[in-house]
Amino acid sequence: MTEPAIVLTLSCRNRPGIVAAVSAHLFESACNILDAQQYDDTQTGNFFMRVVFNRLDGAASREGLRAGFAPLAERFGMAWSMRGADERRRVMILVSKFDHCLADLLYRWRTGELAMDLAAIVSNHPREAFSHLDFGGAPFHHLPVTKDTKLEQEGDLWRLIQEVSPDLVVLARYMQVLSDGLSAKLTGRCINIHHSFLPGFKGAKPYHQAHQRGVKLIGATAHYVTSDLDEGPIVEQDVERISHRDTPDDLVRKGRDIERRVLARAVRLHLEDRVILNGSKTVVFTD
Amino acid sequence: MTEPAIVLTLSCRNRPGIVAAVSAHLFESACNILDAQQYDDTQTGNFFMRVVFNRLDGAASREGLRAGFAPLAERFGMAWSMRGADERRRVMILVSKFDHCLADLLYRWRTGELAMDLAAIVSNHPREAFSHLDFGGAPFHHLPVTKDTKLEQEGDLWRLIQEVSPDLVVLARYMQVLSDGLSAKLTGRCINIHHSFLPGFKGAKPYHQAHQRGVKLIGATAHYVTSDLDEGPIVEQDVERISHRDTPDDLVRKGRDIERRVLARAVRLHLEDRVILNGSKTVVFTD
Amino acid sequence: MTEPAIVLTLSCRNRPGIVAAVSAHLFESACNILDAQQYDDTQTGNFFMRVVFNRLDGAASREGLRAGFAPLAERFGMAWSMRGADERRRVMILVSKFDHCLADLLYRWRTGELAMDLAAIVSNHPREAFSHLDFGGAPFHHLPVTKDTKLEQEGDLWRLIQEVSPDLVVLARYMQVLSDGLSAKLTGRCINIHHSFLPGFKGAKPYHQAHQRGVKLIGATAHYVTSDLDEGPIVEQDVERISHRDTPDDLVRKGRDIERRVLARAVRLHLEDRVILNGSKTVVFTD
Amino acid sequence: MTEPAIVLTLSCRNRPGIVAAVSAHLFESACNILDAQQYDDTQTGNFFMRVVFNRLDGAASREGLRAGFAPLAERFGMAWSMRGADERRRVMILVSKFDHCLADLLYRWRTGELAMDLAAIVSNHPREAFSHLDFGGAPFHHLPVTKDTKLEQEGDLWRLIQEVSPDLVVLARYMQVLSDGLSAKLTGRCINIHHSFLPGFKGAKPYHQAHQRGVKLIGATAHYVTSDLDEGPIVEQDVERISHRDTPDDLVRKGRDIERRVLARAVRLHLEDRVILNGSKTVVFTD
Repeated sequence: MTEPAIVLTLSCRNRPGIVAAVSAHLFESACNILDAQQYDDTQTGNFFMRVVFNRLDGAASREGLRAGFAPLAERFGMAWSMRGADERRRVMILVSKFDHCLADLLYRWRTGELAMDLAAIVSNHPREAFSHLDFGGAPFHHLPVTKDTKLEQEGDLWRLIQEVSPDLVVLARYMQVLSDGLSAKLTGRCINIHHSFLPGFKGAKPYHQAHQRGVKLIGATAHYVTSDLDEGPIVEQDVERISHRDTPDDLVRKGRDIERRVLARAVRLHLEDRVILNGSKTVVFTD
Repeated sequence: MTEPAIVLTLSCRNRPGIVAAVSAHLFESACNILDAQQYDDTQTGNFFMRVVFNRLDGAASREGLRAGFAPLAERFGMAWSMRGADERRRVMILVSKFDHCLADLLYRWRTGELAMDLAAIVSNHPREAFSHLDFGGAPFHHLPVTKDTKLEQEGDLWRLIQEVSPDLVVLARYMQVLSDGLSAKLTGRCINIHHSFLPGFKGAKPYHQAHQRGVKLIGATAHYVTSDLDEGPIVEQDVERISHRDTPDDLVRKGRDIERRVLARAVRLHLEDRVILNGSKTVVFTD
Repeated sequence: MTEPAIVLTLSCRNRPGIVAAVSAHLFESACNILDAQQYDDTQTGNFFMRVVFNRLDGAASREGLRAGFAPLAERFGMAWSMRGADERRRVMILVSKFDHCLADLLYRWRTGELAMDLAAIVSNHPREAFSHLDFGGAPFHHLPVTKDTKLEQEGDLWRLIQEVSPDLVVLARYMQVLSDGLSAKLTGRCINIHHSFLPGFKGAKPYHQAHQRGVKLIGATAHYVTSDLDEGPIVEQDVERISHRDTPDDLVRKGRDIERRVLARAVRLHLEDRVILNGSKTVVFTD
Repeated sequence: MTEPAIVLTLSCRNRPGIVAAVSAHLFESACNILDAQQYDDTQTGNFFMRVVFNRLDGAASREGLRAGFAPLAERFGMAWSMRGADERRRVMILVSKFDHCLADLLYRWRTGELAMDLAAIVSNHPREAFSHLDFGGAPFHHLPVTKDTKLEQEGDLWRLIQEVSPDLVVLARYMQVLSDGLSAKLTGRCINIHHSFLPGFKGAKPYHQAHQRGVKLIGATAHYVTSDLDEGPIVEQDVERISHRDTPDDLVRKGRDIERRVLARAVRLHLEDRVILNGSKTVVFTD
């Protein structure tokens, strides 16, 4: 099985025969299904599917397979994508002062655990702020910001995004709130890590809020960015136990571990086409 | 070591010498410290301590030990209690329709895991609603309630509490909100289980709220009841992973397991004098 | 969707076209796929699938659907089953002195969480040993055993199993080791709960072994019974954190919670046809 | 409270009055107890204690405090240590090919989360093998090894350890088994990370063993090195859920996350004097 697998994801209104139509089409196209998962949202009537397959002898090229699938997709009114597992996504990472998530993503990228191309690393802090980190040749962009230049800086950021054209933008503890306009432009392709177990402790200084409230577990949440701050569709969450002895600083320290693993998992799920948006929620086909 | 241990808990303003004074006093009183935990809240300047000890030859009676400790407690301005581990707390359990927490508490009481006396079981539903449960001789009180009789029913409940005089009241999925007045009367001796990971999803139907929001973990919270609904000091919390496939009914089912174990842990911690109130938070000396 | 769903599980040698053949067959049989999961074991070349579907207008009866699927199953050399989600499995529970798992299974059966018929409860202890438990009309059989009558008692047990003819036998802390012969007869339909995180601490008194070794987590394991003691295919496991303070008795107490939830999950997975044997391992299609 | 705290740890045979004697001594020495934890092992009759305190006006120097405590320690036959929280431990890290634990320790050292001095990094692979890692000025030593030079290499390692004189040696996935002799010399000051949930899957290739056995959780174990391979006193363990879909390679990947966090926690616990050896087990005073 030397040829890389191909991942098909789709969503549409549910109706009988979708699975049969898709699997018969793939079989007739000389493709072999390796894995398939589906979800039928009975509340909304929407249907979601992820199929992994590979090409057998006599199968068309990838482009040919896409062209061949289009009519079927149209018949069912599907939103869909078909992508080789080896077609790496281009990722742009944004970071501010705290670089634990960036360091972790870099490490996982280097080991091949995150199969992505690092299209750019962007920060409102200069390169020297991350001097101990090896960016492995990824281009770095310094976009400084002050209270007065927030608008201009975001304009620069948007121009850079258009230029770099990343498939995914990761806010790896980027402490600048994106405007509604930019958030809207990045719908479904921008993941943020929030340092609380949402919907608890929205907004600023969540660890201090958690300490104040006296909770016994703290958490982190990776979600797609929307114009509604801290309300975007959740991709992944996790928590850890704390005690009354933990100061806000202890929570910040313990939280770093939660944040980096939650963000890494969310990025990995996205890169493997395992996440499909379902309104304000997500369908996550885990492995 | 046949004689049961004695548990001393105390809190006061922090100042040097408290530990030395307490441990020297116990030593001079022919008592041997078996375990001791302390917490110094540097934000508020308050000090908390839990000491487990037993009497050696020549020690005074328990009453004598209490009398002997009083002057020291007064000197440091301590709030304190000294109780034999065998002096069982009297517990009143309130329950509505869902009896999974009640069933669990009854089982743990029967096995001796929860060392308490069941002073009363109270419900707005009749005894027949729990016909499959063996109350083990605990008195049952049916206090029916309608929208119109809420005030009277709570009056009856308060009279019953005064009569039964429980050390602890447990709201084991008792779906009636206590009035501010009654909540105030029960400060520090009434534990509720809320079926969400507070502060997320306060109020009614938290599992439906969680499903609506698309969170990836659900939880439960055991807290002391205060007049501020769902804002009381948290004793214990826990969570479990869910997925997009889970319907609100699935969350209710999975939540039952979380609720019963969180409530059981909280009750156990309280019964063992491991929880001390610290303003709107708790100090929990775990084992 | 008033008609209950039907669950198809199958396993066979992997080859292209299985998914297409199955889904096309169901579509042509006027059935609609609600959920489907599959697993391709590339090490062994075996393929596993679980499909949930319901009948649309014009579909054959369940018996007809089974007859219609048989030729396809034969063509691919499938081991398979097709069962209505409403066709309840008959379950026999075996228990010795410790009844926490039995009490938990009974509670979940009563609430409908475990969709099964209780065909029999069997113990080497008399009914009075469980006097506080409501068996809900399930027949109880007392099969006392001594060191000298072990062989005869197992003979009686086997006769009872043949008579009751349960679909599943659950060893809910049944402290008698089944003989190789009986284990072989129950292959794939007998689940045991072992009170350790296997493969650690096989054999007797695992909590004492765990305490002796000084581990920081303890666990429980639900597995199918085979003639190789504590080596059967694992269905489910879980763990909890402990500390140096925990005595063996504390581990037994904490372990009860792990055991009952691990066993309940395993039974539920089995009842919902989510577990397929794969040699000495299991494929578990979780929800 | 600008002056750093001082940590006193001690163990001795249990007898009445130890806590009183220690706390009275500290009080009379113008020291204020900030935290104290103790453990009384009733099986062995041994007593363990960890006290954190600071010096008040009029207290002796640290050297003076140590000298002052010595007679009391001798009276009770204590093994003890008294160390300023600011007196950083010197740590030597050994690593082979897999550098995820090393990368993680370096990051936590850089952020100050691990308060230690990096005395040396040692590997059987050359510096270039870790070219993407910033060692922050820590000396690197390349000690290559072949099957034939194992003895000589360990001799070199021991000379290096004597020269560097580290307080703690960390085997951060160092894939060379230490000889009994060297293990004995490092008793209580050498922590290894084993990539399984011990005592399950001792020895080589534990993830492959775990895959073969079909367990549903995998784990990692940090333990003190003893001459008895994989049997040393356990400091910390953790696990994660896996499924039948996970290949041995997936387990290796998931395991990296468990290994690095378990090792980091164990090192932190050791650096903060929270771990005391208790025969073949450990007493861990968590925060």
